[in-house]
Amino acid sequence: MKDTPRILLTNDDGINAPGLMALYQEMQKLGEVTVVAPDSEKSAVGHAITLSDPLRVWNFEKNGTFFGYAVNGTPADCVKIAYWALLDFKPDLLVSGINLGSNTGINVIYSGTVSAATEGTILNIPSFAISLTTYKNPDFTYAAKFARKLGVQLLERGLPKGTFLNVNVPAVKEEEIRGVVITRQGQAIYEERFDRRIDPQNRVYYWLTGKKVELEEDEEVDDRAILHNKVSITPIHYDLTNYKYLDELKKWNLTP
Amino acid sequence: MKDTPRILLTNDDGINAPGLMALYQEMQKLGEVTVVAPDSEKSAVGHAITLSDPLRVWNFEKNGTFFGYAVNGTPADCVKIAYWALLDFKPDLLVSGINLGSNTGINVIYSGTVSAATEGTILNIPSFAISLTTYKNPDFTYAAKFARKLGVQLLERGLPKGTFLNVNVPAVKEEEIRGVVITRQGQAIYEERFDRRIDPQNRVYYWLTGKKVELEEDEEVDDRAILHNKVSITPIHYDLTNYKYLDELKKWNLTP
Repeated sequence: MKDTPRILLTNDDGINAPGLMALYQEMQKLGEVTVVAPDSEKSAVGHAITLSDPLRVWNFEKNGTFFGYAVNGTPADCVKIAYWALLDFKPDLLVSGINLGSNTGINVIYSGTVSAATEGTILNIPSFAISLTTYKNPDFTYAAKFARKLGVQLLERGLPKGTFLNVNVPAVKEEEIRGVVITRQGQAIYEERFDRRIDPQNRVYYWLTGKKVELEEDEEVDDRAILHNKVSITPIHYDLTNYKYLDELKKWNLTP
Repeated sequence: MKDTPRILLTNDDGINAPGLMALYQEMQKLGEVTVVAPDSEKSAVGHAITLSDPLRVWNFEKNGTFFGYAVNGTPADCVKIAYWALLDFKPDLLVSGINLGSNTGINVIYSGTVSAATEGTILNIPSFAISLTTYKNPDFTYAAKFARKLGVQLLERGLPKGTFLNVNVPAVKEEEIRGVVITRQGQAIYEERFDRRIDPQNRVYYWLTGKKVELEEDEEVDDRAILHNKVSITPIHYDLTNYKYLDELKKWNLTP
């Protein structure tokens, strides 16, 4: 590990989010930190990138001091523009978060927080995404400490090509944390509902709502670990091929 | 296979795109078709869903006749709202496309076309995404015929839970197609560049540009199949866990 590793931080809740500030303060103890984050909230943007609009970058201050670069784009845009345009070095570590709310199960594919870590991984930067599993009264203290601890390990050990870590931290006090589990992405899905309403101009509109449905019981699943007050770490890769199914598919009759 | 399968179509180029029309005309020969598609282009939106804005739905006409439902959302939104709010049946098949431009290699994770097929798969609808590998002078005729052919197979055989097909069709004449290959998602990435410009108000802005870099040579990779004028079919799943790395990760020192 370098004496002063260079660490890139981003998120999807926006550059002014408390979770990013908590992460920033803790990661500064570990190395030289650069923040490049969306100028506003970009939750559930998936792995979107901005092709049809120009990107702009601002210096963003907190308490009168430069804090980081704000970008009018998605988390993936932030990582790309940091790497290709803003920084004159390759970061030793990328951390995305701390997200307000869990990124587990099927949510992993909708997550802007996770997409930033994916983007870092594409650029061969050791990366992890970290989320605190609550939307209410968040206390990011322990999650930030854990991020630093994991950062040390990651800087020492590295990760296999194309793989990053998706971390979810239970929203409980440090003394109530029961351990760390290496998990797989769960199969929890949403039973969705579209709330149909009529606007003052008498036009129909819909809000997406839904409740999560747990499908698995074993401990080594992201959502289950959280339920038992354990930190969940899932190794994620972006090769989406279902290799097990290749041979079966070759039997189909698909001559052109 | 049912006598009259019910087929849901969507895309990310928008409800008025010629690729969707070509698909619609061909799939009507196979069953009862419903179109639910974005009201405008939504390329590179990744697996975004709309939580912060209300969704609206319009009846969209072509040549004075009802063609389908236009939604002010992403491809994933379209599939969700079709399933949960607009349709009173579960489709037997979902097809997303025909996209203008390939969805291969790393592009798969940015693709709105692919995200719609993912969403169908989450809802247990047999699904595929289909793309024509050109942006210029597209002729969707053969790709649409191939979609129908693949649709027949899919309706007969089904797919394993959590898996769908990502199809890329070379942009050549039918007689130049050299076959069909079952492929894996390639590792082709982008060497990106941000084109830095100054606007009339003297402010800096950036456009994302980039060129694809091929990294593999073997034939059973999506981009390579296309290069040899073969239709590429990749089985895709949305469990992003890197299972091979679970045991290694358990050795890390991560006590909380």
